[in-house]
Amino acid sequence: MASDTVVGAAPAGPSPLRNRFDSTTMHILGIALAAVSLGMLCCTLLEAVTSRRDTMALGTSALLAGTAGGLMWYATVPGVIRMRQVFATVSWTWILTTVVGAVPFVLAGTFAAPGVGFVEQVVNSVFESASGFSASGSTVLSDFESPGRGLMMYRQLTHWYGGMGVVVLAVAVLPFLGVGGLELITAELPGTSSDRLAPRVSETARRLWLVYIGFTACAAMSFYAADGFSSLYDAVAHAFTFAATGGFSVHADSIGHYDSVAVETVAIVFMILGGTSFSLHWRLVATRTLGYHRNSEFRTYLAMLGACSAAIVLIIWLENGLPLGSSIRAAVFTVVSLGTSTGLSNATGPGSPGDYVAWVAGAQLVLLFLMVVGGCTGSTSGGIKVMRMRVLGLTMLRSVQHAQTPRAVIPIRLGADSVRETVVSRATGFFLLHFVLVMAGLLAVTSLGGELETSLGAVVSALGNMGPALGEAGPTSDYAVAFTQPARLVLALLMVIGRLEIFPILLTGVGLVTTAYRGTVRQGRRTVRWTARRLEDLAERERE
Amino acid sequence: MASDTVVGAAPAGPSPLRNRFDSTTMHILGIALAAVSLGMLCCTLLEAVTSRRDTMALGTSALLAGTAGGLMWYATVPGVIRMRQVFATVSWTWILTTVVGAVPFVLAGTFAAPGVGFVEQVVNSVFESASGFSASGSTVLSDFESPGRGLMMYRQLTHWYGGMGVVVLAVAVLPFLGVGGLELITAELPGTSSDRLAPRVSETARRLWLVYIGFTACAAMSFYAADGFSSLYDAVAHAFTFAATGGFSVHADSIGHYDSVAVETVAIVFMILGGTSFSLHWRLVATRTLGYHRNSEFRTYLAMLGACSAAIVLIIWLENGLPLGSSIRAAVFTVVSLGTSTGLSNATGPGSPGDYVAWVAGAQLVLLFLMVVGGCTGSTSGGIKVMRMRVLGLTMLRSVQHAQTPRAVIPIRLGADSVRETVVSRATGFFLLHFVLVMAGLLAVTSLGGELETSLGAVVSALGNMGPALGEAGPTSDYAVAFTQPARLVLALLMVIGRLEIFPILLTGVGLVTTAYRGTVRQGRRTVRWTARRLEDLAERERE
Repeated sequence: MASDTVVGAAPAGPSPLRNRFDSTTMHILGIALAAVSLGMLCCTLLEAVTSRRDTMALGTSALLAGTAGGLMWYATVPGVIRMRQVFATVSWTWILTTVVGAVPFVLAGTFAAPGVGFVEQVVNSVFESASGFSASGSTVLSDFESPGRGLMMYRQLTHWYGGMGVVVLAVAVLPFLGVGGLELITAELPGTSSDRLAPRVSETARRLWLVYIGFTACAAMSFYAADGFSSLYDAVAHAFTFAATGGFSVHADSIGHYDSVAVETVAIVFMILGGTSFSLHWRLVATRTLGYHRNSEFRTYLAMLGACSAAIVLIIWLENGLPLGSSIRAAVFTVVSLGTSTGLSNATGPGSPGDYVAWVAGAQLVLLFLMVVGGCTGSTSGGIKVMRMRVLGLTMLRSVQHAQTPRAVIPIRLGADSVRETVVSRATGFFLLHFVLVMAGLLAVTSLGGELETSLGAVVSALGNMGPALGEAGPTSDYAVAFTQPARLVLALLMVIGRLEIFPILLTGVGLVTTAYRGTVRQGRRTVRWTARRLEDLAERERE
Repeated sequence: MASDTVVGAAPAGPSPLRNRFDSTTMHILGIALAAVSLGMLCCTLLEAVTSRRDTMALGTSALLAGTAGGLMWYATVPGVIRMRQVFATVSWTWILTTVVGAVPFVLAGTFAAPGVGFVEQVVNSVFESASGFSASGSTVLSDFESPGRGLMMYRQLTHWYGGMGVVVLAVAVLPFLGVGGLELITAELPGTSSDRLAPRVSETARRLWLVYIGFTACAAMSFYAADGFSSLYDAVAHAFTFAATGGFSVHADSIGHYDSVAVETVAIVFMILGGTSFSLHWRLVATRTLGYHRNSEFRTYLAMLGACSAAIVLIIWLENGLPLGSSIRAAVFTVVSLGTSTGLSNATGPGSPGDYVAWVAGAQLVLLFLMVVGGCTGSTSGGIKVMRMRVLGLTMLRSVQHAQTPRAVIPIRLGADSVRETVVSRATGFFLLHFVLVMAGLLAVTSLGGELETSLGAVVSALGNMGPALGEAGPTSDYAVAFTQPARLVLALLMVIGRLEIFPILLTGVGLVTTAYRGTVRQGRRTVRWTARRLEDLAERERE
């Protein structure tokens, strides 16, 4: 379709040319695919020099994605994009990238196993791709040895791309639309009067990418050092996960594979940083001053991680009877991993201290709470975000105050500023929407054969882009064991919905349904009119 | 303590007399206890003419409650009550009534069984009393044959008293304080300028009692007829449960005992009416016009019950493989029973169609939703209430609209009126508080040894004054099997908290803690000062 219009197109330039589509959505889709293709290409090279098992699969995928992406990129020019279109663009970018990103897994037969048909392989590939690009980290992979090193690195890279997209989205795009938690900080940010997002967004995006790449490099080097300079491959692979607060690992037993306090410490530090707003990191780079301690959300976030760690240490030490040292190590790592919505695990095997599904129910409840909250706004973590939770907590306290003094006017304050009531209303609306989606997802997944506790954990985990869940879908298991194929697809969809903070996919979906409905109605009317006319004709003819 | 002041007191009159306490709280407590004593007395008579097993226990309790209540009543005069005191009064009334109401069960040894010590008997009695007066209907009773008929009727009567208290509280007291869902209707009600609640409340209360008694009489007669005029005792006992949307039955297998469509139909009708605002019933009596269909909350409530019934019929017919007829009968009864927070069951035994814990997870989720919602404001049902859920739903929809048009000002409308933002904020605050209490309760109950799914069901059920829960605490089981003694006490507390719509108990608790804290600080300061002085003295003496 695009090939018609691209004929004779000049190379990309800043000015719009004739014979090109004027579509920002297509343009951005093209760029996204081209970027993914570039990543695939790098992994093909890696595969070619190391394992050589999945070179063809990766290479073919890179070629396909590159061609499709390149065509879309060159065939279109970015025009004026209206705010409403942004949602559709973001949604379609994520969905298309997820689908194209699943191709290498399908071609390589990553999920091929005795008794696993082609359809299930495709379902699993899409699930893995959705989990990757949404930086969730839930996996259906059980055999970590068969795929080549390039393919495994590609799997990690999906996280990294997803995280990069999210940072740009959360820090640069959504606040301009008045959605996303960051509006709370940037509420008074000037300059949303124009409908053109592009200049400001692309400038902010460029800065953020620099920070993101720097972050990844630091994480990789630290990991490499902590692991005793044994494998640069492992270091880079996990750095991708830290930056994106993803959760994929190249080892079946995740960070538990190293069984090393040094590695776990590096992981904890970078997971915490990954769950921190990238605006704060940018401030560090730009002004060379530490702004972290002056950010009230960051303080709440650290306090939350600290309090939950302490609670879980106590619970599993006293109730599970683990030694105090193991309790602290397991609890802190797990709390940070789930509180930042990363999802790495330091369990060395089923029943080891880090295997939290073996903890008593109380500790798992605390984890479920962390899964719901997630990290800071403007970070790569998922969930409702600390900022919104603070607003919700203050709303709750206000209702108690109101019960005492019904006629008082009580503003909600974050730090020195009072939050506008529309912002409060949107935060509660988001929470309610999240709640309804959890219920709907739970209904769907349990109807498709999931067990209640496992499903609850998985739905919360998927919407919060966490990774591992509770019950059968815990850190030492995989989702293929716990869920049927349709349930896996539902969870994959929930991951994408959660990643984009619900509204983009929801509104795009509503838009699609509305258009389809209107189209059907129009077609229906036409059919009725046509039939009526035919009947009249017939009646006429019979009369004659 | 009160006996000193009552000496020489004249009989009760409208004017305050010397030598009497000026305490409305004590006065109301006294009235409540006297009323409970009267109920116990009636049940003693019933016991004396029928079973004669627990006559002494009931008679002694009646005497104790009557003496204590009478003293408090006569020793005090109702003074001017400030709005803030209302919460304390309401809280203490419910707590004291629950404790005193447990006495007959303790004295009769209702929960005596091999291996059940005195402490556990007391715990169980308090649980049963809390469940009764909060009109929840959760039970720890497994042996329904040993207690006498009078005692069983007393157990039903606790529901009736609880329901009566709630109606007065929800329709006559709380709206004046600006809490309770009914504020949504009566938002524009004039006359809250005065701090004196008494005249208006007592007038409204008198009307409501008439309606409540009439309702109970109708329910009893209908039940008697549906049951083939076989037992007036059963009819009255269940009428108490319908009016209060309680859940206790005189049979271990609840309504399943009759296995009769006629009885179940009567139960469904009266449960629905019990979950309807008593203001609507009053309107019927006062103006002889049906106002039900014009009340938008009532319409939503019926729609919710209808939709959930339909969903569950489909689920259990298709997925549990029950016959369609049984599915409809089981689903409609259970949905109405849990949607009105009654908690009666038409299960004829474990695994029968009505035993909903045997249903697939999807159907149980719908039930969990119903447990959270509850019936209409101003009814005897528990939960968050349909009205608040509508406001929450509209808030959620508004956040979606805001995502599309960020700068639009969108009011929330119920029917023709737009709801004030403070009311919206309070409804969301209440929901969040409910959510936090569920989490806290769940943490407590699971820490005290409860299994996750069973605990979740029980905590939601307790806060919503439902009765039966999920898992091991389902309709054919009892709470003594599923929960440890401390967990039962936590659940009993949650029932009282939920019954009073959270704020009264919460604020009274906060008040107590604050007072205790201040007292401790003051005492601590005094001790420090005293010690310092002693040390100075000692130093002085040593110098000499």
